[in-house]
Amino acid sequence: MKNDIVLTGDRPSGPLHLGHYVGSLKNRVHYQDIYKQYIIIADLQALTDNYEHPHKVHDNVFQVACDYLAVGIDPTKSTIFIQSQIPEIADLTIYYLNLVTVSRLRRNPTVKTEIDQKGYGDAIPAGFFMYPVSQAADITCVKATVVPVGEDQLPMIEQTNEIARSFNRIYKKQVFPDVRAIVPEVARLVGTDGKAKMSKSLGNAIYLSDSADVIAQKVKGMYTDPNHIKVSDPGNVEGNTVFTYLDIFDPHTDEVAELKRQYQAGGLGDMVLKKRLTEIIDSFIEPIRTRRQKFHNDKAYVMDILKKGTAATREVTAKTLAEVQDVMCLKY
Amino acid sequence: MKNDIVLTGDRPSGPLHLGHYVGSLKNRVHYQDIYKQYIIIADLQALTDNYEHPHKVHDNVFQVACDYLAVGIDPTKSTIFIQSQIPEIADLTIYYLNLVTVSRLRRNPTVKTEIDQKGYGDAIPAGFFMYPVSQAADITCVKATVVPVGEDQLPMIEQTNEIARSFNRIYKKQVFPDVRAIVPEVARLVGTDGKAKMSKSLGNAIYLSDSADVIAQKVKGMYTDPNHIKVSDPGNVEGNTVFTYLDIFDPHTDEVAELKRQYQAGGLGDMVLKKRLTEIIDSFIEPIRTRRQKFHNDKAYVMDILKKGTAATREVTAKTLAEVQDVMCLKY
Repeated sequence: MKNDIVLTGDRPSGPLHLGHYVGSLKNRVHYQDIYKQYIIIADLQALTDNYEHPHKVHDNVFQVACDYLAVGIDPTKSTIFIQSQIPEIADLTIYYLNLVTVSRLRRNPTVKTEIDQKGYGDAIPAGFFMYPVSQAADITCVKATVVPVGEDQLPMIEQTNEIARSFNRIYKKQVFPDVRAIVPEVARLVGTDGKAKMSKSLGNAIYLSDSADVIAQKVKGMYTDPNHIKVSDPGNVEGNTVFTYLDIFDPHTDEVAELKRQYQAGGLGDMVLKKRLTEIIDSFIEPIRTRRQKFHNDKAYVMDILKKGTAATREVTAKTLAEVQDVMCLKY
Repeated sequence: MKNDIVLTGDRPSGPLHLGHYVGSLKNRVHYQDIYKQYIIIADLQALTDNYEHPHKVHDNVFQVACDYLAVGIDPTKSTIFIQSQIPEIADLTIYYLNLVTVSRLRRNPTVKTEIDQKGYGDAIPAGFFMYPVSQAADITCVKATVVPVGEDQLPMIEQTNEIARSFNRIYKKQVFPDVRAIVPEVARLVGTDGKAKMSKSLGNAIYLSDSADVIAQKVKGMYTDPNHIKVSDPGNVEGNTVFTYLDIFDPHTDEVAELKRQYQAGGLGDMVLKKRLTEIIDSFIEPIRTRRQKFHNDKAYVMDILKKGTAATREVTAKTLAEVQDVMCLKY
């Protein structure tokens, strides 16, 4: 609905890739026409597991903004802001921490999985441990009603709703609306290695800023069917990353269907397919890359968009905080 | 040293009592002449275990301020501020949370004891769990170098120094000085029931705002020597609360020594002693109570002092935050 407020965004821990495009950027370009959309560049959240690399996070704020503008996120339709520049988020986080128990945070399945993945063991930084509370502050500071997330992020929305409802109940006012999760149809793109998720840390990503050469190289190394040795061998289409990508990016579905038939029958080589995919991905990325380069060359322009988006967001978050402090008797 | 910056203060969870006076207020009146002294009214910290009672915390901010002014804390010498009105503290807390692990917080002896006392079991509010980090933000936001604490609070200072040193090391700049704890000689006054600590929650406190009648009543019920039944019985001076108080508040040390002798020999009744102590405590509290009433009747004046103190503090904390954000690359 037009009245809905969307909060979405990214941790600026690296430039964005095709996985981001398929799973979220593409949808945001659509959402900005039907919702009031806020896009958060969550630098403080990125610092929770990059606190020793502040320069990296800082630089990536700009990189991510370039990606946004390049894919068609329109700053006249979407409000892009930098998390650390909204002090109200820190205030709200502190207030919300009273409404969540330590054991509840420990039970959060998303955080649990991430703690295992990062191998923190017993040395979990407290900031990382409680980032679901900080996310609740991100979402509620603009009173978002809709948050697009992957399946694995659903517990985060649940946590936000728990906090918002506790807040409304304890302070006896309906300050925050319920938040609805939208799980996009294609939430996740496999990596070039065929692994479940395209991700910077797994080194299996094609970036929106990759050159034609780099794309060619990455597609060349892409996972196909390991048993498809000779061209004449019949090959598997299921789990074959090249076909997964063709299904998503190749507009000629009839031709892709025919290629699948040939591949399964034998007589179609990986090289031919990969050449086709390289061209398709490059022709998809090429205009994004060109626009991105233009924005990248004009840092002042991009940072000004972030500055204005942040200022516009603060107008809203200041109102939210004033309302919150009012019911919490924190006005003197 | 005159260059030292002191941070001290209270959680506004109730009006202040004689225990506060002996353990800290008296020293603050002295410190304000030799140090630059900031006094924090820690309303957000009070909310960590009173989040369901925001009106109570709000009202106690004013009560505590009246107590301060009544005992002689001079707003032209000390800077009194309200924690929640310094947004920089929330920002710093969020940054510091990255520098502390969850297991480190769990090992904090002060918090451990308090968690047991409050009977939280597994349901420890996250805000309470991490209040040592928030305290580190309180202390460092004004770059305090000295913090007067009771013995039981020493782990808090240790935690603050750990955070400050980690920060300086990770962000490669000596932003924060080391903090030194001062443990006052008389850090703790026993309660009227003889229990180790005078405390609102134990119901064994004499308040700086108590009337003469209430004081008389409280002293009448004071713990003495349970085996001192008849006036002629010899009585114990050790652990006898009335003598503990006389030692602290009675300026006539010779007379007190003589009373002790008589009491130990037998022939001195509790009633006589308690009458003396009532007069001494009332004559001590009377001028405080009178000044307090005057301030209490002029809320606008008191709140204006807090407003000005908070504004003066923010001038300093804004500079600290700017320096912190600079080294953390959080300026855009």
